[in-house]
Amino acid sequence: MMDLTTVMPSTPETFQGINPATGQFLPGDFQEATAAEVAQACERAAEAFTEYRKKSGTEKAKFLEQIATEIEALGDELLNRAQAESGLPLARLTGERGRTTGQLRLFAEYLREGSWVNARIDTALPDRQPLPRPDLRQMLRPLGPVGVFGASNFPLAFSVAGGDTASALAAGCPVVVKGHPAHPGTSQLVGDAISRAVEVCGLPAGTFSLVQGRTVAVGMAIVEHPAIKAIGFTGSWRGGKAIFDAAARRHEPIPVYAEMGSTNPVFFLPKLLKEKGSTIAQSYVGSVTLGVGQFCTNPGLAIVQQSPESQAFVQEAGRVVAGSQPATMLTQGIQQAFTNGLSKLSTTEGVQVVAQAPSAESFANGTPTLLATTGEALLANPAIAEEVFGPSSVVVEAGSRDELLAVAKGLEGHLTATVYGTDDELLEYADLLEILEQKVGRLLINGFPTGVEVSHAMQHGGPYPATTDSRSTSVGTNAILRFARPVCYQNFPDALLPDELKAANPLHIWRLVNGKFTNE
Amino acid sequence: MMDLTTVMPSTPETFQGINPATGQFLPGDFQEATAAEVAQACERAAEAFTEYRKKSGTEKAKFLEQIATEIEALGDELLNRAQAESGLPLARLTGERGRTTGQLRLFAEYLREGSWVNARIDTALPDRQPLPRPDLRQMLRPLGPVGVFGASNFPLAFSVAGGDTASALAAGCPVVVKGHPAHPGTSQLVGDAISRAVEVCGLPAGTFSLVQGRTVAVGMAIVEHPAIKAIGFTGSWRGGKAIFDAAARRHEPIPVYAEMGSTNPVFFLPKLLKEKGSTIAQSYVGSVTLGVGQFCTNPGLAIVQQSPESQAFVQEAGRVVAGSQPATMLTQGIQQAFTNGLSKLSTTEGVQVVAQAPSAESFANGTPTLLATTGEALLANPAIAEEVFGPSSVVVEAGSRDELLAVAKGLEGHLTATVYGTDDELLEYADLLEILEQKVGRLLINGFPTGVEVSHAMQHGGPYPATTDSRSTSVGTNAILRFARPVCYQNFPDALLPDELKAANPLHIWRLVNGKFTNE
Repeated sequence: MMDLTTVMPSTPETFQGINPATGQFLPGDFQEATAAEVAQACERAAEAFTEYRKKSGTEKAKFLEQIATEIEALGDELLNRAQAESGLPLARLTGERGRTTGQLRLFAEYLREGSWVNARIDTALPDRQPLPRPDLRQMLRPLGPVGVFGASNFPLAFSVAGGDTASALAAGCPVVVKGHPAHPGTSQLVGDAISRAVEVCGLPAGTFSLVQGRTVAVGMAIVEHPAIKAIGFTGSWRGGKAIFDAAARRHEPIPVYAEMGSTNPVFFLPKLLKEKGSTIAQSYVGSVTLGVGQFCTNPGLAIVQQSPESQAFVQEAGRVVAGSQPATMLTQGIQQAFTNGLSKLSTTEGVQVVAQAPSAESFANGTPTLLATTGEALLANPAIAEEVFGPSSVVVEAGSRDELLAVAKGLEGHLTATVYGTDDELLEYADLLEILEQKVGRLLINGFPTGVEVSHAMQHGGPYPATTDSRSTSVGTNAILRFARPVCYQNFPDALLPDELKAANPLHIWRLVNGKFTNE
Repeated sequence: MMDLTTVMPSTPETFQGINPATGQFLPGDFQEATAAEVAQACERAAEAFTEYRKKSGTEKAKFLEQIATEIEALGDELLNRAQAESGLPLARLTGERGRTTGQLRLFAEYLREGSWVNARIDTALPDRQPLPRPDLRQMLRPLGPVGVFGASNFPLAFSVAGGDTASALAAGCPVVVKGHPAHPGTSQLVGDAISRAVEVCGLPAGTFSLVQGRTVAVGMAIVEHPAIKAIGFTGSWRGGKAIFDAAARRHEPIPVYAEMGSTNPVFFLPKLLKEKGSTIAQSYVGSVTLGVGQFCTNPGLAIVQQSPESQAFVQEAGRVVAGSQPATMLTQGIQQAFTNGLSKLSTTEGVQVVAQAPSAESFANGTPTLLATTGEALLANPAIAEEVFGPSSVVVEAGSRDELLAVAKGLEGHLTATVYGTDDELLEYADLLEILEQKVGRLLINGFPTGVEVSHAMQHGGPYPATTDSRSTSVGTNAILRFARPVCYQNFPDALLPDELKAANPLHIWRLVNGKFTNE
């Protein structure tokens, strides 16, 4: 295995944030973490784990709530910095801050309720023949220190104090965050807020660390450190897959929860297009261009069955795209990747550009673009369905119902898939829904996939290559399960059992006792 | 990636079972599966999945029960063949058959109850500000076709119709089993029984396939086939790790649940040894030699704190070992690996042979052996703690309480750890329990780890290198979770939802509805 840490600076180097709207450097020097600093953060996390793993649900809940309070206390300084670093509008960032603190408080509430540990008790059967059954009690326990990679597209909600950090801390795991280099100032403000919460709550300092850096080496040093027991990541396929591979090559392989995005196919069925194709075309383009198309759930692929209505739909969508405006993307690198991806896609055989917004020269503008292809062309070249991160989408015109189903069958794993249709039509296309259910983590009817609710029933994941672990979610309360493993206690005296498993059920949680759910 | 399938025979070759007690070939020719046959089994599983995944809990329960019935209908033919192929006594195999059919019926009951799908419902909040909440409903759905590797040491309970097969079929996944070459006749009988159950239940033929072979290539062809979505394995670290690596290298990486065994450290605390060291020494040796030591949970490592009592304990254990008998191991290969492992261990610096049973010449006899070392020697050379599969164990004499804790801290991942102590002593050694909890899947007090209950609260797994996925269990009802992933349905009309998620809860399962558990 290549020792990536050797390319890390042994003396501190610094870097600056860049305003993507202007291309100007922003105030503040951020230190590129050295190999020794990364190792120290991981070792301190391991040390902290011996204490932090024993904290009760209530103690961890207080900590998560304190983090939310500290983030709110940063006030406008945080929002202004995040806007300067990401080019995202203040209103969106205000909402995202609410999502971030709301997420922390939801996990706090989940911990206070406490049943997430999946407690299971099989009481002893001393007289059973031919052999007695011992007393067996099981619950989830934290895995150990977790490495988290902040994402660029949600500088608050999927970054330093985002869902991965919140769920890992909730599970009882210390966290080492690798801040995204596109928003170092935002990361530092939030990282310092978490560290203050650590102090206020009297937790070991190593419970949380932030390391910053622009190099791959800083992140890989976290992945490869023996103290780290799991990784949370949101970003590109390239980055996620490299981390997955490095984690599998370790002496002790560890789970990697990499959410690598997808094109989130949306199927528009004929009858509904006939009824209200024009309205839907407008909503579709609205979803494609929302947040300059920089959502993991951006609908990058639309599939229609060729008909006069589908042609009208494409025409209307094209009209809306042509009337839309370019906007600042998160970084110049992302804007360039978008431009290159579009240029490759638009010169692919069988793909046409339907419409494009007027372009406007700027440092990092993304220009909304609608493309079209045929089912036949996509089936011959599945690369057309690959994600181009940004405000573009490809409409696939399938020649027939069968071709539409063939396109669905040919899809790789995605985070979401959506079907738009009338009530009757959805029943007629039950076979399409069945195919799609096998391809995604979330299946929607008549609604766009952008907008990922933080709740108990949300699933934000999906089969590879959307993620590296389709059994997990990175949004919603089930995200906590990624960072825990079951431990069974056999024949333990009650006094030595965790409260969750004690005979009297002092926490009043739901448990499976001899096969029956009960909170008694 | 090396294409291992090219070394598979393109024309059928055959092999025979061998009686380990005599070294004689057993009747019956078994075909070494060709690459085309393995591919066909995987493709038929993928085809079957489109139907089998939709079967209700009741339908799958009937199927599992039918498999149990068909296995019982094999009568003595199965037990006799298993005995001839494994050298295991009939009484043990009769018990193991009961475990196998009991396991199938436990999963059937679990499916009929139905709450395992972890249904979660967040109902729509159309008036919420600033944005409405859509209706979100989530449940577990099957992953897809599963490859299962039969183990040699449980020719029934961890083989063709063992826990991996039972839990994968329960989850809704078709199964392709690679039979263990040590018991091809047993595998064939059970495989045919499952195929009869498939037919009786009117399921697609590809729901279950058995392929046989002695080469690594047959198994690797399953792991590498794109239709296979997960692997269950019980066996050696070498085999499990090779499968894990191959699965991670696939175009689409898949989860591998490899249970690779461990040495299951047992700590004997001083006061208890003072009270009843002699009795415990006898039970300890009984657990070490049970089933000729061929259990994944065999206590291969015993740790004591040096004292007059610990010396008496070792002496007594040695006396019992010296008075025990060698017995036939599963295969000559296993016996040779045991002999080589023992020979390597006994010539390791700091390790002494305390006692050995009288040896008796035979084709595949394993001779019970007790070894001893010091805490210091083990800390200097952790390889002493590595598994030697068979009826041997190493007693580690720690010079002090601190050294005993240091030995515990230095352990890698194991399936189990055990502490023997008086009630007072267990409280005094709470720090030992805390350390061990981080190393294992199951922690026992005053009882040996051999004997793995099939129940809801059992956890048969543990941190690497005991398994490749510490979040999973291969025994107990939670084993089903390995083969399922959550799917979220957003804004679905009730008629299109699976029964588990319908508003009226027609299956009366437990669900988390807006954050509250209910079966209404």
